[in-house]
This record gives sequence, structure tokens and C-alpha cells, in this order.
Amino acid sequence: VAVRLAGICRTDLELAAGYKGFQGLLGHEFVGEVLSCSDPARVGQRVVGEINVACQRCAWCLAGGDDRHCPHRRALGIRDLNGAFAERLSLPLINLHSVPNSVPDRAAVFCEPLAAALAVLEAYPFEPGTEVLLCGDGNLGALLAQVLHRRCRLTWLGRHPDKLERWRQRGYRTTLTIDCQYPVIVEATGNPAALAEAQVWLEPRGTLVLKSTTAAERLLDLNLLVVSEQRVVGSRCGRFGPALKALEAKTVEVQELILASYPLDNALEGFAAAGRRGAGKILLEVG
Amino acid sequence: VAVRLAGICRTDLELAAGYKGFQGLLGHEFVGEVLSCSDPARVGQRVVGEINVACQRCAWCLAGGDDRHCPHRRALGIRDLNGAFAERLSLPLINLHSVPNSVPDRAAVFCEPLAAALAVLEAYPFEPGTEVLLCGDGNLGALLAQVLHRRCRLTWLGRHPDKLERWRQRGYRTTLTIDCQYPVIVEATGNPAALAEAQVWLEPRGTLVLKSTTAAERLLDLNLLVVSEQRVVGSRCGRFGPALKALEAKTVEVQELILASYPLDNALEGFAAAGRRGAGKILLEVG
Repeated sequence: VAVRLAGICRTDLELAAGYKGFQGLLGHEFVGEVLSCSDPARVGQRVVGEINVACQRCAWCLAGGDDRHCPHRRALGIRDLNGAFAERLSLPLINLHSVPNSVPDRAAVFCEPLAAALAVLEAYPFEPGTEVLLCGDGNLGALLAQVLHRRCRLTWLGRHPDKLERWRQRGYRTTLTIDCQYPVIVEATGNPAALAEAQVWLEPRGTLVLKSTTAAERLLDLNLLVVSEQRVVGSRCGRFGPALKALEAKTVEVQELILASYPLDNALEGFAAAGRRGAGKILLEVG
Repeated sequence: VAVRLAGICRTDLELAAGYKGFQGLLGHEFVGEVLSCSDPARVGQRVVGEINVACQRCAWCLAGGDDRHCPHRRALGIRDLNGAFAERLSLPLINLHSVPNSVPDRAAVFCEPLAAALAVLEAYPFEPGTEVLLCGDGNLGALLAQVLHRRCRLTWLGRHPDKLERWRQRGYRTTLTIDCQYPVIVEATGNPAALAEAQVWLEPRGTLVLKSTTAAERLLDLNLLVVSEQRVVGSRCGRFGPALKALEAKTVEVQELILASYPLDNALEGFAAAGRRGAGKILLEVG
């Protein structure tokens, strides 16, 4: 695949900070064009790509296990597989999804993080009427907010008043502080200290959905978890099909999350910008 | 209530080690006799008692919240309420359950920990055919094993070969080491290091049910939790009704778990015995 546009994710910053010890090329959010493959019909297609590559040989895979959880999987720009911050990348055909014409590159490049946001729906049945606190107003937070706002009674906690104010004007219930407990909390701050704070605001028997991985150590109070019979659920990658549909239907706003784009040659500058507190999405222009 | 017999629980040892900073009389497993109360019909009844005393006044209680989770609750021998290692204790009538004649004191005294073991059924739907690993062959472990063995495909991990051998002879699948992953793991070791080990043997999207609280800090790997989309569920107190039924029907063996009993005056000796590795249940004879 010839990469056209790639997005910098907080996970890239964590990987760069030492998380997982990955040594290859970073980048797992991209839109590109198929340059060569075994199926001539797909050459030239504009595509996005699911990032997990299962081994298809182990007991997990042979038993029909979810490819996102193959213990020997490679993951684009994260684990044993060079990523999208490059002119070319390679993925199995089965991972690639053709992008509808109506979805521009600058929206399609959000397919991976939007799929990750939609993955919370696999982790918990967010039913109408459920009071949910979302922690984090970063880029993943803004995608999660849009996914959750349509389904349940969302309160969105962030620390950037100007950012939240824009969403408040569109009908989102936003806040800078927590003042009551919630039956469901979605943690997407990527901030190690925020987790312990969120746990305290979880109702007895409530569910905490964890979306972020961090290089720094985070602590859960496991006695509180037992005593209050809390539930903690991890959530990672989602499927691209529903994400592409949402982008096509424009039910989720993504392009306004873009702060800036940099040519691949200035990727380090892009990384510095992405690392600034409250930064919007930084894109790298490749093709 | 005039206490007749009380059991020493690992939680008592943890409380004595500083967990929760409780300063009152310990003891939350007991069987006794009603000495005085507002309902003359109950005086003289042989009873066991649920340990959580809700305030009945706060927003949680007034909204019909579970009394076990009232934020202002007192808990017998654990929180703001003197416990059962004494000649007398006091509980609201609503907490007391009359003990059937066929259940001797030395079985009835297990009602509280058996209810706690049965509480795992509120935390996870242990369906027939589910492969479950139970970690811990202490007293709570032995109750959990009996609850789970009847419902699902249980593997029971412990570190006392002689203890496990007795259960193996009755058809339990026991082991001293883990060599494959499980979709469900119940952690009841009370051993801080065991938790981290158990988490590694949890399948992707698997559920870890945590039963024990510890004064010492325990760590969960939260990146592993997110990446493998694991679920962690805390489980604490159960209801006494089902536990009394199981004791009456003798579907759970409890009396063989008793190692020794001590008069209340020798309680410290009893505590020392209860603290020894692999100790069976230690009882205190009060009345």
C-alpha cells in the first residue's frame, strides 16, 4: 500500500516513550492506495487497514479465535510489523477495506481510532438512559463522546474548557470536575493519575471501561474493587466496517479534530506537536 | 445476640495487620442466640447474621440500593461495629436468620463465608461447560471449589498437595501449577503475588473474579488488561438464605474444614493458629 496520509496517535507517543519496546516504524492510522497485491481487481483501490495480523496457525486461530487476540499476532506499527509512517506498508488483503468515494482522505485516516472508539460497544451494553461519565477530551475522547452521546446519558469530563465549550454548544453535557458517582465510567485520558481518581467516582457494582494504554504505571485500588464489587473492562481495537459506515453517514465529526498536518520529512516536528497538552490530531502527509 | 461460636477469617488477620484501620472488636462469622430484641417471638432463636448494616437514610438507601453497598454502612467486626469475638453482639433484626435445627453450630458458623463464596454467582454467570480456574486452597477456596464444582468445569489450583489430594479423590480436578489459559479465573488466595500470576493465565476477553482483600498492595497489569480486553470483577458478601439452604441440604461440606477450636479467652492462640500457612478454619468457643 502506498500511504497517502497517516495519523499520529497517543499510542505512538507511548511506544516512543518505551511502551512495549517496539523497534520498527511507527504508524497505525492511515489511508493509502493499493500498489500491488495478489488480486489485480484491488490494485489502485483507496484503502484503510485493520492493524492486527493473526498468525492463522496457532491453536487460538485454528479454533476460530478473534484475530485481534491471536497471541502471535503482529500489529501495524506496534508489534513486529513496520507501520504507516513510511511511503509503503504491507498488510494482508483481508485487512484492507476499500474507502467509499464520499469519504475524503482526511476523514478516512480516522477509521482506526473511530473503530477503537466504537469498540467500547463490544465491552459494555451502553443502553439508553444509562448515566455514563467519559474521562478525557483528547482525540480518542472526542470520538468516544460522539459514539456515546448518541446512545446513553453522557457526561464528558475534560480539562480543556475551550474544547469542551464547543461541544457543549452542540448539546453535549460537559464538565471540568466530577461531583457524583456514575454506574459507568469510560477512561480515555491516557493520564496515569486520572485512573485512580475515576475509580473513586464509580458506583458500587459499576463498570469502568479502560481504553488507554500507558508506558507509565497506573494503579487500581483492588481492595476498593472487591469491596465495592466494581467491574473493570479493557477495550482495544474495533472493526473497520462500522467505522467506515459512520464516516460515510457523517454521524461522527472527525475532520474538525485535525490540528495540523506535516510532510513525512518533518515527522519529528509533527510528533512534538502531537505531544503538546491538548493537541488536536496531527497528520503526516506521505503520498 | 449471645455468641456461641465464631470463626476466624483471613480478613480478621488482614484487619489486625492494619487493613482499613478498624479499631473495634473483630469477628464477623458467628452463630448465636437472640437474647433480647423488639420482637419477643425471636428471643431464644438460634441465629446467624448478615454483617452489613445500611444507614437506611442516605440517597443510596432511599433509592432502594443494595444494603451491602450503602456508603455509610457499618459492618460487623469490620467497620464501625463491634464484632463477634465477644460474649454479646448487636445487629438489626432484619440481619438475623434463624438456623434450621438440622444445622449444627459448627456448620452454621460457616454461613457467612459460604454466602461470600456463593456471591461469585452474582458476579459472573458460571455456565455449565465453562472452564474455570480457581486459585487458592484456603478455607474460602474450599467453599468456592464446592460451589463451582457443581456448576462448571473447574480446575482448582492450590499449594497444599495433601489438602488437594483429598478433594481429588472425590472427583475434583486439582493442580499445583497452571499450564494453560482459562476464560474465567477466580482469585481467592489472599496472596498479593498470586494475582499478577493469575492475570497472565487469563484468556483474551476472559474474566478474573477477585474475592480477596489484602492489606498488602497488589498489582494488576492494566496495559495487559486493555490489550487483552480482560474483565476484572470484584465480589464480596453474599446473601445468607442460599447459604443456609446449602448447609441444610449438606450440598457443601464445611465441618471437615475445621482445624481446631479455642475458648474465647485463648483467642490470641487461635489467631496465631489461623495465621499459619495452610491452616484450616479456627473457631472460637464463646457461649
